[in-house]
Amino acid sequence: MSHFRPVELHHASRLINHGPTVLVTAAHGGRRNIMAAAWSMPVEFTPPRIAVVIDKSTYTRELITGAGAFGICVPGAALMDLTYAVGSESGRDMDKFAHYGIDAAAGPVLGMPILEQGCAAWLECRWIRETHTESAYDTFFGEVVSAAADARIFDNGHWNFTDQNVALHTLHHLGAGKFVVAGNQVQATFPVSK
Amino acid sequence: MSHFRPVELHHASRLINHGPTVLVTAAHGGRRNIMAAAWSMPVEFTPPRIAVVIDKSTYTRELITGAGAFGICVPGAALMDLTYAVGSESGRDMDKFAHYGIDAAAGPVLGMPILEQGCAAWLECRWIRETHTESAYDTFFGEVVSAAADARIFDNGHWNFTDQNVALHTLHHLGAGKFVVAGNQVQATFPVSK
Repeated sequence: MSHFRPVELHHASRLINHGPTVLVTAAHGGRRNIMAAAWSMPVEFTPPRIAVVIDKSTYTRELITGAGAFGICVPGAALMDLTYAVGSESGRDMDKFAHYGIDAAAGPVLGMPILEQGCAAWLECRWIRETHTESAYDTFFGEVVSAAADARIFDNGHWNFTDQNVALHTLHHLGAGKFVVAGNQVQATFPVSK
Repeated sequence: MSHFRPVELHHASRLINHGPTVLVTAAHGGRRNIMAAAWSMPVEFTPPRIAVVIDKSTYTRELITGAGAFGICVPGAALMDLTYAVGSESGRDMDKFAHYGIDAAAGPVLGMPILEQGCAAWLECRWIRETHTESAYDTFFGEVVSAAADARIFDNGHWNFTDQNVALHTLHHLGAGKFVVAGNQVQATFPVSK
């Protein structure tokens, strides 16, 4: 049984606000792919828009520009090895979903591959073509049109990292397969001025 | 005594690769400011370039476009309250450095304010003007021209999160002053295909 629940679009930026490494997916013309991306960020709350760096050499980039859309999935800690693997191999010559036994569904609005098993959240994005930044910085922009999260860690618009949901704690790639896991949730208070 | 050591520019992107919330600084015409930014990412390894979202309403944006440069500091967990505070108040009417007793030095190449006390790393960036993305997505691009990190947590081009350097573990903003701290460092291995 899935624990995923829809996330209101004005809360969608929160799903990647804290800088998790994400999985980028796309499907077009009967082909599909999934890759890892450490470089993504929200750029606007409403409408919810994000930026993600997609290298020119990637197969995913071809599929995104073909489909006009992409998916973003936020893997939990339990998917670390898979995240590293799909970020290290190209999907040109193999279907990574089949190869790694990834159970993907089609997103409700754009049909992009979305993962729930092991993930904390997903977002479907409509590609916003920005020829210059794509060329100069490999930076793609997208508008989030649907999103959902596992209610055990993100509910009612808020993250809730606890000792009971460690498998869903987000991954943050340091480089070369080395990750830190975000886990210790704390609330800031205003400091007294000096 | 400072534990900061220079970071080679081809390693600079690693300082924000894992999505930490950062402090953005700028100084121009005798004024200076510091704000928090959860939305930043590297966009290229070599030359090291980054993107960061700077809202049109911010005083920092005025200073960046005036100076043609900005600083990025990566606060450690011990600076959580300060990070929240400088991200919540405008520097138009006060000098946040003086107000909060922030000890900033001038960066070696561009003279941007840099913090070492309590921070894990800093980067000085030359602003790359991109009128369209600044207007449409508040997204600023910059090229890193100098960088340094506290050798107790980043040394020889690599992060090293341990139980001995928790005060320098990076902050990742979830929203409304709620942060997760990245701490549990783990190494991925390739999964066996299904």
